[in-house]
Amino acid sequence: MRAIDWIPADGTEPGRIRLVDQTRLPGTLDFLEIRTVDALVDAIRRLAVRGAPALGVAGAMGVALAAYRLPAGEITAAATKLRHARPTAVNLAWATDRAYAAYEKGGADAALDVALEIRDADIAACEAMAARGTAYLADRLNGRTPLRIMTICNTGMLAAVEHGTALGVIEKLHADGALERAIACETRPLLQGARLTAWELDRMGAPYDVIVDSAAAITLARGGADAVLTGADRVAANGDVANKIGTLSLALAAAHARVPFLVVAPETTIDAATPDGAAIEIEDRGAEEVLAFHGVRAAPDGATALNPAFDVTPAHLITAIVTDRRVIEPAADQSPAMP
Amino acid sequence: MRAIDWIPADGTEPGRIRLVDQTRLPGTLDFLEIRTVDALVDAIRRLAVRGAPALGVAGAMGVALAAYRLPAGEITAAATKLRHARPTAVNLAWATDRAYAAYEKGGADAALDVALEIRDADIAACEAMAARGTAYLADRLNGRTPLRIMTICNTGMLAAVEHGTALGVIEKLHADGALERAIACETRPLLQGARLTAWELDRMGAPYDVIVDSAAAITLARGGADAVLTGADRVAANGDVANKIGTLSLALAAAHARVPFLVVAPETTIDAATPDGAAIEIEDRGAEEVLAFHGVRAAPDGATALNPAFDVTPAHLITAIVTDRRVIEPAADQSPAMP
Repeated sequence: MRAIDWIPADGTEPGRIRLVDQTRLPGTLDFLEIRTVDALVDAIRRLAVRGAPALGVAGAMGVALAAYRLPAGEITAAATKLRHARPTAVNLAWATDRAYAAYEKGGADAALDVALEIRDADIAACEAMAARGTAYLADRLNGRTPLRIMTICNTGMLAAVEHGTALGVIEKLHADGALERAIACETRPLLQGARLTAWELDRMGAPYDVIVDSAAAITLARGGADAVLTGADRVAANGDVANKIGTLSLALAAAHARVPFLVVAPETTIDAATPDGAAIEIEDRGAEEVLAFHGVRAAPDGATALNPAFDVTPAHLITAIVTDRRVIEPAADQSPAMP
Repeated sequence: MRAIDWIPADGTEPGRIRLVDQTRLPGTLDFLEIRTVDALVDAIRRLAVRGAPALGVAGAMGVALAAYRLPAGEITAAATKLRHARPTAVNLAWATDRAYAAYEKGGADAALDVALEIRDADIAACEAMAARGTAYLADRLNGRTPLRIMTICNTGMLAAVEHGTALGVIEKLHADGALERAIACETRPLLQGARLTAWELDRMGAPYDVIVDSAAAITLARGGADAVLTGADRVAANGDVANKIGTLSLALAAAHARVPFLVVAPETTIDAATPDGAAIEIEDRGAEEVLAFHGVRAAPDGATALNPAFDVTPAHLITAIVTDRRVIEPAADQSPAMP
């Protein structure tokens, strides 16, 4: 199964994007067929598709969609709109730019080639990260097994294409018989952990527990997990990591409990142009997500809320960044910008 | 207004307890009249009444209720049941024991005298903590004003009788014109911050924002608050503090951001018989509170959850414990057990 893919043109219509509507999980596994850039931007904004790698694939496929379906004069504006649909994950801008550059040189087919290449590269990168991540854990934890792994948000197939980043490592541990239990932080406000990661863990038959995000620190302090694994939306040149809100708390809790804290993300998430975390724009997604869930309101009428959707974890709290090509150890003063 | 009080006997029936049903806030301000120990235990277990000081008052008044209304042979069992209605807050056991000892010596009237004394002492203690807490903040922050204060759970009137502990300090800052804004962590799983603290702040006309618990760390790291104030359910002899789940994360985040972390709790919350945090029993309240949000289920069917309702913050992360009698500075190696 693929969380996002391209349906090629057939006799009746040009190609289109097919993606899992993540807003309907875990209750319903539903696919959207996306035929316009506006529909794609809407799907990205309301998080029907989300996760840094998946956003990259979506952005590139969106450029191809525009190139096949829009008049030539509207394609630049469509690509710009896509590029800015969400600000924090670097992959969206990077992939959209790449597909657009290909379109400018070689037209719609060239944009689609790049989009499919990014899709295939994502699948391969997740496989490489799963292998490298499990090997690093075995090494770091002296072969201890089976492992209890804590994670936040959703970094599985739903956030990528076929397999995930951090959850891809957990999936491989499970496949290897080396996973005792996953601990999924629920990930307020939108509960991607309780909804999506739990759904994926259930699908793969892996034992897991959900916890509220604020229970992570005591769970770790009392020895409840062997390692913490998260994804990343953007890795700065110095090793600071922007990721789902709550990641910084997890990193602080892991450091307090002396548990390894691993970020699992493809090389494409490293943004050499961003020197450090202070330079990363953090999206505020507005009060309603905080004050209510699925339309049920908890706070009093008139309440206001702050809703930063991401945070920045400083490099010194990160034991390792596992990519598809290497392992960087920021806490030991390695930085992604080093060769 | 009082969150809990005793309604004296009138011509038709013996005395009874009147308390705000906190499960119905913020939507409805509703009072329960409690006439049986079973009804009180039920109210305590389903958190219609909660908060360490309020639980103390409830426990003592419950013994008086039992003494007036039950046959002599059933009173010991009733007091025992009350004492164990919830395990973590020391105040419930302490106050129940005190009222029961009074009953044994002097009967129902003596138990009621103790209960009313505990109620009045709570009111006075909260006033003393508000004065001492604001003075300590002024001193510690070199008179900086107005202040932005972050807090978790509900430590207001609803958790006490007339005014709160940590929220009592915030209320006094507001009354003194020294509060810029309160930042209320929503406090999953039961959202006492978003529901109850927001309701109290709204009632006192204080400006505030709600955040998800996991947004506290980046909010503090980016300079969003001048201090963090929490209550306590039990303070161990060495200064370790058991409090609402999420308090440890907040303390780690405050230390990371170099922001003072204050615990505001009456002397009665200090449990000299508990040497340190490791000895404190942490209540697990079961999976359902985690798997649903305000009654809306988020996780897949069959999901399991861990639900520790409290955590333990080690003394070295606590800048100050402000009680009704003194300020203890655990991070500077003072402990509550010292004279």
